[in-house]
Amino acid sequence: MPQNQQILLDNRPEGEATASNFKQVASDTPALQDGEVLVRHHYLSLDPYMRGRMNDSKSYAAPQALGEVMQGGTVGEVVESKNPKFAPGDKVAGMGGWQEYAVVNANQPGALKKVDTTHVPLPSYLGAVGMPGVTAFYGLVKIIAPKAGDTLVISAASGAVGSAFAALAKARGCRVVGIAGGPEKCAYATGELGFDACIDYREHDNNSQSLAKALKDACPDGIDGYFESVGGWIMDAVMLRMNAFSRMALCGMIAGYDGAPLPMAHPALILLNRMKVQGFIVSEHMDVWPEALAELGGLVASGKLRPRESVPQGLASAPEAFLGLLKGKNFGKQLVKLV
Amino acid sequence: MPQNQQILLDNRPEGEATASNFKQVASDTPALQDGEVLVRHHYLSLDPYMRGRMNDSKSYAAPQALGEVMQGGTVGEVVESKNPKFAPGDKVAGMGGWQEYAVVNANQPGALKKVDTTHVPLPSYLGAVGMPGVTAFYGLVKIIAPKAGDTLVISAASGAVGSAFAALAKARGCRVVGIAGGPEKCAYATGELGFDACIDYREHDNNSQSLAKALKDACPDGIDGYFESVGGWIMDAVMLRMNAFSRMALCGMIAGYDGAPLPMAHPALILLNRMKVQGFIVSEHMDVWPEALAELGGLVASGKLRPRESVPQGLASAPEAFLGLLKGKNFGKQLVKLV
Repeated sequence: MPQNQQILLDNRPEGEATASNFKQVASDTPALQDGEVLVRHHYLSLDPYMRGRMNDSKSYAAPQALGEVMQGGTVGEVVESKNPKFAPGDKVAGMGGWQEYAVVNANQPGALKKVDTTHVPLPSYLGAVGMPGVTAFYGLVKIIAPKAGDTLVISAASGAVGSAFAALAKARGCRVVGIAGGPEKCAYATGELGFDACIDYREHDNNSQSLAKALKDACPDGIDGYFESVGGWIMDAVMLRMNAFSRMALCGMIAGYDGAPLPMAHPALILLNRMKVQGFIVSEHMDVWPEALAELGGLVASGKLRPRESVPQGLASAPEAFLGLLKGKNFGKQLVKLV
Repeated sequence: MPQNQQILLDNRPEGEATASNFKQVASDTPALQDGEVLVRHHYLSLDPYMRGRMNDSKSYAAPQALGEVMQGGTVGEVVESKNPKFAPGDKVAGMGGWQEYAVVNANQPGALKKVDTTHVPLPSYLGAVGMPGVTAFYGLVKIIAPKAGDTLVISAASGAVGSAFAALAKARGCRVVGIAGGPEKCAYATGELGFDACIDYREHDNNSQSLAKALKDACPDGIDGYFESVGGWIMDAVMLRMNAFSRMALCGMIAGYDGAPLPMAHPALILLNRMKVQGFIVSEHMDVWPEALAELGGLVASGKLRPRESVPQGLASAPEAFLGLLKGKNFGKQLVKLV
């Protein structure tokens, strides 16, 4: 069995996460038991939700255990199998974590899924045709539930969720406005991802009123649906422009992961505008995944959704890439290439 | 035609509302046109939403116009009619406003409704079998949508909405916990209204953590549904105890009507607990009223819902009674008796 490299959570962040929270170790790969499969990871997915799990606080998911491999989505290839449903050479997606190899009990429901790379590139199963894509789908279709002509806004527009959101929303005849950090990301959102407009939040310097003014220009008919993964002053700004009976899907509050809880400035707007604000975790809605993946796979296969990826090489690059993701330094879906 | 007495909004509050914002005037009652009905008001309803309309700010309803009769729900008796559907002696409910008489174009849909006082007392049509009752029904049935065994919490428990909420929730097999101001209101909530427990927020001195601790004792299984009409630190406290997939119906934020906007301290809880938070205005859901009034009328007729009323006498008492309502000085449904 091959030697494995793993990245563990060594200690919990105090405030901002740092590289010293992680530790890379070499380990032996155990021999396979019946039903198990050895997967060589080709790509590791880095996602903002991982930051929340690094804290030892009440959350929807158990915290990432100390001294264990960082959890995360992976795609790769089966190299050895004691499971009749998998054979060496199969391309697979799973939750293998921050390591080069994983031994997976493939009889556990959902632990490992064969994927077809004929029309969809393997790493897309970590992005557009994976968890981020389904996240965009659930928030858009099941919570915002737009009709053609609605104006929708998404923060973190140029990321993995944002790019899928734009493609899905345009397919439904909506106007889609993004918020992103920096002119390059905004140009990418409008030039390549199909956004009708994109606002650079860095031009507004933590000033909700200023951002709300820019949103008024970009959304002359107001905002009917908002997909939120940031929180704080950006959420406050968008809420100032939400229409009557608008819907806000809340799938992350990355702005508050590091420190003090961020308040919502004007909750009375939920009443004044008879809004619906709903939080969700995509892993709790597995019934929606097949429908979502079918549409997302079609968009990728047809070339309508081909977002860029940030792909550093080698497991050792994962911690810095992850910390960069939390600061918005990535461009498109953040991966790590292992093979 | 009789001489009329009216109370007008004379000027808008700066901060807290005061008696000097209102002005009482005498006026002549115009002769009836075809289709019109003259109603002698027996009771006038005073409700927290009126405070919001006194401000000249963006809201779901147009602001109360200056120099015009304060709007509000009324019940009374037809004294003269040029409408074939109404006859003198008919008991009616409408939106006649703060005045002794109203001339109503009864052909306008919803302007005037005959009510049956055989089993339901006339003033109940302003409370349990009126707008406050339907408000409780909508928030409970259409937003919170509880199942038997759920734990529900309502702020302003001893008021007109709270009493109806408790009766409707107990009929659905829920545990109902109230929040009210002072030991008398709490004793009334548990002794007469059917609440399983009631917490006196005055014992917690604007301290969310302290109130959250009391809620933990009163709601050992957490909170599945919350009906909110107060906002501020009380809302923050309840949110700390909400369960996964809990629902919050937001129908008022009385704590913020007077001054600076009140933030929500921990909006990330909406995500962590996958909550649904929804604002609503009951007048926008007229399709629900018949179903709601049928159930509420049955509860009142059978004696299962007979909340107390605060009933000062005479139109001139309306401003002070209204200002007292905003400070929680009323006990049960706040009315003014005019006849």
